[in-house]
Formats: sequence, C-alpha cells, structure tokens
Amino acid sequence: MINQHYKDMCATPSVIRSLAVYATERGKEIGYENVFDYSLGNPSVPVPDAFNEAIVRLLKTRTSSQAHGYSPNPGNPEVRRIVADSLKRRFGIDYKTEHIFMTSAAASAIAHALRCVTQPGDEVLTFAPFFPEYNPYINQTGAVLKVVPADTTSFQINFAAFEEMLNPKVQAVLINTPNNPSGIAYSSATLTKLAQILKAKQEEYGHEIFLISDEPYREIVFAGADAPFVSKFYDNTICCYSWSKSLSIPGERIGYVAVNPKAKDAEMIVPMCVQISRGTGHNCPSSLIQQAVAECIDMTSDLSVYETNMNLLYNELTDLGFTVVKPGGTFYIFPKALEEDANVFCEKAKKYDLILVPSDSFGVKGYFRMAYCIDTGKVERSLAALREFVNKEYR
Amino acid sequence: MINQHYKDMCATPSVIRSLAVYATERGKEIGYENVFDYSLGNPSVPVPDAFNEAIVRLLKTRTSSQAHGYSPNPGNPEVRRIVADSLKRRFGIDYKTEHIFMTSAAASAIAHALRCVTQPGDEVLTFAPFFPEYNPYINQTGAVLKVVPADTTSFQINFAAFEEMLNPKVQAVLINTPNNPSGIAYSSATLTKLAQILKAKQEEYGHEIFLISDEPYREIVFAGADAPFVSKFYDNTICCYSWSKSLSIPGERIGYVAVNPKAKDAEMIVPMCVQISRGTGHNCPSSLIQQAVAECIDMTSDLSVYETNMNLLYNELTDLGFTVVKPGGTFYIFPKALEEDANVFCEKAKKYDLILVPSDSFGVKGYFRMAYCIDTGKVERSLAALREFVNKEYR
Repeated sequence: MINQHYKDMCATPSVIRSLAVYATERGKEIGYENVFDYSLGNPSVPVPDAFNEAIVRLLKTRTSSQAHGYSPNPGNPEVRRIVADSLKRRFGIDYKTEHIFMTSAAASAIAHALRCVTQPGDEVLTFAPFFPEYNPYINQTGAVLKVVPADTTSFQINFAAFEEMLNPKVQAVLINTPNNPSGIAYSSATLTKLAQILKAKQEEYGHEIFLISDEPYREIVFAGADAPFVSKFYDNTICCYSWSKSLSIPGERIGYVAVNPKAKDAEMIVPMCVQISRGTGHNCPSSLIQQAVAECIDMTSDLSVYETNMNLLYNELTDLGFTVVKPGGTFYIFPKALEEDANVFCEKAKKYDLILVPSDSFGVKGYFRMAYCIDTGKVERSLAALREFVNKEYR
Repeated sequence: MINQHYKDMCATPSVIRSLAVYATERGKEIGYENVFDYSLGNPSVPVPDAFNEAIVRLLKTRTSSQAHGYSPNPGNPEVRRIVADSLKRRFGIDYKTEHIFMTSAAASAIAHALRCVTQPGDEVLTFAPFFPEYNPYINQTGAVLKVVPADTTSFQINFAAFEEMLNPKVQAVLINTPNNPSGIAYSSATLTKLAQILKAKQEEYGHEIFLISDEPYREIVFAGADAPFVSKFYDNTICCYSWSKSLSIPGERIGYVAVNPKAKDAEMIVPMCVQISRGTGHNCPSSLIQQAVAECIDMTSDLSVYETNMNLLYNELTDLGFTVVKPGGTFYIFPKALEEDANVFCEKAKKYDLILVPSDSFGVKGYFRMAYCIDTGKVERSLAALREFVNKEYR
C-alpha cells in the first residue's frame, strides 16, 4: 500500500526550487542573461580539464573490471588510501584507509554518519542559519533535529542558546562550515569553545556526543578568513566531504566520510557505514568517478571567481546600507532584508529580476541568501538592479 | 553515541564474501587460475566498447555542467525519457518519463520501491531461494521480510505455501526473475497465477499489494526459456532494474525504478522516491554514467559466454547424477548437494579447489550455488575437479 507519509511530503514545495523554476520561466520571456538568478548553489566554474583527462586515461589503461567492476562496499581501497594520505598531509591528522568511507557526496555521507551515532528518538542539534535539507536528512533517520537560534551579529555560534539546548538526549551536533547560507567560516575560537563544551557535556552525560562536520565548501575559502579544519578540534568528529563544489562535479555524487582516528570506536564506524548502506541502497559511488577524483586529489576548479563575485556584492550591499557579515568562503552571502518579512522583500525584488531566497527556510527570519555562483559579468550587471530595487522600494 | 544495532551487524560475516576471500588466499598458494572460484556474481565479460566511447564522446561534446552538473533528483529527464521509450518499444507498456526514477543500481531501486509501498511493521513476502541481501534491504525499512518456502522441483513459485502466508499485513511481494541463485526464470504461467492471487487478495483486503520486481538478470536469458516481462502481468508492479550485469558495469551503480503506468498512484511514486532519497542520502547516480547508459540503451555486453558455461556445467552435473533444474538465465546454477548438509558438502569441495556456496543463506537447505561468470576455459578445467570430488567423496 502507498506510504502516505512520503506521499504527503511531495506536497511541500521547496522555496529555493520554486524560485529557480520562476527564474527559468522569466528567462524565457526576457532572456536568461537578464535574470539575476541568485537562487541555486550550482557551481558555475567548469571542471578542471585534468578530471576529464583522468577519466579518459582510466578507460584506456584499466581493464573493464578495474574501471567498472564492483568496488568493495566502503569504496575502492586505493582511492580511500589516497584520500587518507591527502588529509593527513594537509591537516596533520593520522587518517588511514580504514577511516575513509566513500559516499554519494555529502548527502550520503551525512546519512551514514547520522545513523552511526544516533538512534531513533535521539536529538541532533544544528545551528541556524542551516541548510534546509538537514530536516529530511535527520528526521528520516528517526532522530529529531533541533535548531539552535543564530548569532546574527557574526553568524558564528550562539553559545548561550546552545548550552541551554544541550541535554542528555543530544547524541550528535551537525555543523556546516564554511556555511550555507551565511558564507561564514567558524573561527578557531568558535571551534575551540564548541569542543570545550562538548567535552564537558560528554563527561557530564556519560556518553559521547559526536560532531558531524558537513564540509562541501571546505576548499572555497577567501583571503584572510580563519577557516580551520574542524576535526583538529574535537576527537569525536566525523567529517562529511563532497567534491561537488571543489571540482564542480555535483552531478557525479562523490564524497566521503572521514572518521577522526581518535574518535570513540573509530575503527568500527566505516564497517557500520557498510551495514547502514545495505538498508539505504547506497553501495558505493561510481567506481570510475572514485578513481578519477583520486587522480585529482589535491586539485580544485578555478574557484577564484567566487571571491571576485563576493567582493563585488559585499561592497555594493554595504554601500547600499545593508547589514551584512562578510563571507569567509562558499558562494553565498546572507544580508539582512530591508523589511521585517524577508518573503515580502524577496517578492518585491522579483520586479527587478533579482532572484533572492528568503531566509525563513534556513531557520532565521528577516534575511536573504544570494548564491553568487554565476558569471561575474552578470553579477556586475545585477548591481544596478540591486541599487534600483533599494532606491525605489526602500528610500 | 555509537549505534549498537549497526555495530552488532558488523559481527555477522557474509558466507559468500568469506568464500571469495578464501578463494583469493588459496589463489596466492596455487595460482588463482587453479582455483575453481564459483563464489561471486561478478560479471566476467567486458563492458561494450561503445559504453567507454560514449563516455569519451560526452566529455568532448557536453559542457562541464551538462556532463557533471546536478541532475534533478529523479534523474536526468532526457535519460529517463530514453529509458521509458526503450521499455515501451520492447515490452509494449506505455511508460513515460514520469514513471522512471534513476537509481544507484537495483539495491537503491529496491530501497526506494519498498519505502514507497510499505510502512514499518508491514510484511513483505519473497520466495526462496532468494538473494540474502533482501534481509537488510527490507528489515532496515522497518518492514518485516517473510520467506515463502521453495518449490524445489522447479524453483517456480510454491503457491500453496504462498497462499497460506498471505494476510492483510502483506503490502508487498518481492520477486527476482531470472533468479539469483536458482537461475530459473518465472514462466508466463507462474506470473499469471501470481497476478491472479494478488488481484484477488487486493480485493479481499481492500488495499493494494505491490509487486516489486528485481530484474538485474533480465537481459541474461538462455535459448528456449520462457522469461516474460513481469510488469505485463500485474498493474501494481514496480520494476527495479540494474545495468550491472547487462553492461558489466556493477561498480558504476546505475539502474532505475520503472513504475507501471497502471499502478495505483503511478504518477506519485517517482516524486515519493525523491522524498525518500532525501533521507537515504541517495540523490541520483552519477550524471555522466546516466548519460552514458542512455547512449547504449538497447545494448548489452556479449553475454553468450554465460550460456556456454551453463551448458557445460549443466551437462556435467546431470552426468554426475546431480538433481538440478536447468537455468533459464543469469549466471547461476543451483544443484542439490550430495549430502543433507550443504555446508559440509561445500567444505569438502574445497579440497578439490571447487568454491561452491552452500544454499542456507538463500533460504533453502541442501543445495549449493555456482556463479559461472568466469572464463569458459576455467569452467572446462573445473569439470575434472568436479568429477574427482564426486567420485572420491560420494561413490
């Protein structure tokens, strides 16, 4: 019989998706180049040539079964070793093959990590503003997502609210730094304090609290930002990575879980992910794509355009009087709207063909997100529209 | 806190996997070419050149974002249309794009289909002998797998046992034809009778009973076999396909759900799969691989070697006096062991470097599986070992 719960879920449209559809439709009327579409976080820079070259080379030099055959459930062992070595080299943590589990990007990494360290009924805390997909990601495991209100002055962590919400039912904390939607990276000071609190609470409650660190934007960090590697601060950390943004390959669905070697039961978490994958129907990302990312392990797309775009927008927004915290990374910026209801604000912006995402679904009211993973030329042309919008509607 | 349930699962080793490890170890001693390793169902024939050529062509002719960008959650719409058109052309059912959901092979297809049509606590029936992974696939959804005993005379369906086990809690029936491990395809007569019973029970219980049809071996069918397309017999059928075996690309993790257009809520099932995928962390197979299979939509590897191997083994086994039903497809054969305990039988076979899988984990006692997706030369050489084994141990 049809499962009513999932059927009902279909009725709730995604705000971001609806705006993207609107932008596409509007593009058909006035030309998409004239729609200042800041809705979707879809990388705009191309994949590095080296990635495509690696695929072609693999197809030529590997046997059919090496290229396309089953990889063991945790992933191709050679690929896992290359990932572990890279993380060790870059961040000085002693990762080994057995700590790496290859996943279908960050979504799958989080799906596995959550199931490893929670049971149905447990609480998972995250910090506003947060990626709205965390709701289904967490609630479909049977655990319960609770959102810590934002510190809107800095978009670092609101520790007072966090400490109030901690209780023995909290088994995991999910963070995302650099952050979608704020663009802010958690500083060394923030992560140090977070780790201190978690360590104290683990002691007090007599059980581990795992930190699940969602890191798809780890490689998109801007000049001067303090954006340290999360797992260095807290032993019970599970890093969830994706190459979607760093190599501009979101459709290839490739990432990993990296278990801190000092975590509780560190050597068991990857075998547990294997068991979990039998139920989720995961069973590994593409064998060919696994091997191709391993060939490009310390490489990224040319990500500099995102910083260029950020500076253009940040300068214009501050000029126009917006309250906005300067992003330390990602391709998002998260200014305060010029009226209380961000939905009304973003609706008005459409008149100027500015597609802005209201902040409500990110767990904060009164802000909006701009995803500036678009051509710099379009960003430049959008500045006049932004100015016109503000002047006509709010002056 | 570490989830004890998944941790405990890690302690149960897979019989098949353990035998494959033994075969590899033994190969280090005597040369793997001398180990008659019938343990794993891993395709032995290469991918068609056209598949690799399609990948290279796609990388040359598509933009970075066409090749590697996000595809919508149900899959690339053009790929879904090509799949629907091919199914319609081949099987005369009016599939459209909206009935196709792209998955990470059959495991993921089943994971989604099950969640669409069951709730925790519901019963799902399958028929012995069955693929042992159905246990975690089903039980991790919260539904309960019940196994209908085998009809060992034909390895078609034991309808008497089936009708006894049907009850209002049964919301889905999961079948696999051609079957792993028996190699048998369900005949038109079997599927007609199955459909009749299900239709009557739907009426009686006042709710749908979905038929989930696991079809990774659909394209490996031998001369003379009656192996019809399941969805033609029963409207409430969800077909779960994988290209793993037909194109020899099991590591690429690519397949689909095809919802019978006449199924209850047919137009809702793909959107429901999208919702389910948010919780499982699935979010589509590789974009590049999706497009590559679409370019090879009606193509297979050269699968003829499996029939050659089957005939060699079937003839030898019957010569040696084994009770064995001739396979209609797949690359498995499932003879009766020559003593009651198939585990003892298979253990003795190891002395002759014959790696056979005892049937217990497939839900039948006293049989064994041979996966003959290996070189024909090795199959030929194994016949003498098989004869020696039987003569020395059982004559």
